[in-house]
Amino acid sequence: MTYNNLIEQIYTKRSFLCVGLDCDRNLLPPHLQRHPDALFLFNKEVIDATAPHCVAYKPNTAFYEVEGVNGWKQLTDTVQYIRTHYPDVMIIADAKRGDIGNTAQRYARAFFEEMNVDAVTLAPYMGTDSMDPFLHYKERWVAVLALTSNASASDFELQLLANGQPLYEAVIEKCSQYGSKEQLMFVVGATRPAKLAEIRKIIPEHFLLVPGVGAQGGNLAEVAKYGMNPRCGLLVNLSRDIIYAGSGADFAREAGEKAQEIAHEMAQFLR
Amino acid sequence: MTYNNLIEQIYTKRSFLCVGLDCDRNLLPPHLQRHPDALFLFNKEVIDATAPHCVAYKPNTAFYEVEGVNGWKQLTDTVQYIRTHYPDVMIIADAKRGDIGNTAQRYARAFFEEMNVDAVTLAPYMGTDSMDPFLHYKERWVAVLALTSNASASDFELQLLANGQPLYEAVIEKCSQYGSKEQLMFVVGATRPAKLAEIRKIIPEHFLLVPGVGAQGGNLAEVAKYGMNPRCGLLVNLSRDIIYAGSGADFAREAGEKAQEIAHEMAQFLR
Repeated sequence: MTYNNLIEQIYTKRSFLCVGLDCDRNLLPPHLQRHPDALFLFNKEVIDATAPHCVAYKPNTAFYEVEGVNGWKQLTDTVQYIRTHYPDVMIIADAKRGDIGNTAQRYARAFFEEMNVDAVTLAPYMGTDSMDPFLHYKERWVAVLALTSNASASDFELQLLANGQPLYEAVIEKCSQYGSKEQLMFVVGATRPAKLAEIRKIIPEHFLLVPGVGAQGGNLAEVAKYGMNPRCGLLVNLSRDIIYAGSGADFAREAGEKAQEIAHEMAQFLR
Repeated sequence: MTYNNLIEQIYTKRSFLCVGLDCDRNLLPPHLQRHPDALFLFNKEVIDATAPHCVAYKPNTAFYEVEGVNGWKQLTDTVQYIRTHYPDVMIIADAKRGDIGNTAQRYARAFFEEMNVDAVTLAPYMGTDSMDPFLHYKERWVAVLALTSNASASDFELQLLANGQPLYEAVIEKCSQYGSKEQLMFVVGATRPAKLAEIRKIIPEHFLLVPGVGAQGGNLAEVAKYGMNPRCGLLVNLSRDIIYAGSGADFAREAGEKAQEIAHEMAQFLR
């Protein structure tokens, strides 16, 4: 998917919503819980109900790996389902991988060829070597962790470097010299909206992938105010608020309604 | 596995060798390459041949994820094989995961319960929240990335913080306040042996997991000189040098001989 394709999607659907597919078997509707492919079956219905209202899905690999081999299969099936039925929707594997050399190459192949997603989240600790093999795939993306919404972001991300810059800004600066806006976005938590304005000074055009609105306390209006650029430049992710909007047999309808409600809110911010 | 168990293993086998199971189907002996379970079949023979000479195995998840669902199965089968046949040998999933909250919990369950490894490598970028759920498992370990051997370690790991400390030292200091030597080790590349002496001043007792000897240019004698503590405190990983020591039908025998040769070299350094 190109940068322009993504922007077109956003303005066509009037939504910059990314739906996080972080499903936990124990939180699924009772009629699904005992099914071996519960995660996939749940996702399938959630996807059908929410696809008109979102521009991206973000399955989090941890929630599938916890089910072992069959979990990995359900993840693959979920990606395949989106690809087949909603080819215009971006698929972001929230994998937070980060390795180098031939290992990073294997991860790039695993996600971009074998699984066939559009984007992968990466941890920047080991430096730009981690991004390199991914950027060789045209029209595929990496979403690099910059400033996350958890408390211990203060351990390292917010630490000041000798030049006075916080580490997360150095990450954004260095990585954006390396990956263009066509292939690179940054993960910035919604719980620190004031920082979004500072980040926009460094990268006016790159997309930001913003988790933390809703359940984690972030505010959509503030994210839009500080983080949006003239072509939107935002993907705002919600997971639990949408996928667990309902807990009974009509969970998918409720997820769809919640996604629609959020998309309506988002539409107000789109210029 | 406890800290003392690991040390006992090292002095019993007179080896602190960790064998990296980073197998690439294209590099396997021709008679295996087309078998659907080639990675597992290869590992099985390599493990049988090398187990007397090593104290740990480190499968790298990327090399299995690249084969999709069946790759994850072969990884699981490999771990199960080691558990069953060589229960005293540590298994380290080189997964470089790093996430927070309920996602980190899922990763901990995926690796410590579902897959049943002893240790997982983690990226520290998001801070100590990433380690937290893993440390709730007794006698299980995390190996946190500190200073890696790749060129772009200079991008962030080696950057100086405002207090004059390089980031990787801050990572070691902060994480070691959080995880004891019983559950936490650090990944430090062999290509920077002088740094090992500095690191030992901060963490005299924690184990260091050291990749980069051999194919990546690191030197075992220097690693031992600067990184070893009175109870060894080192796991030195070699992958390609061992698993691809031979390329024909007798690859396993050659891998075993290479592992034995390295273990003999290691024994000289053990006090």
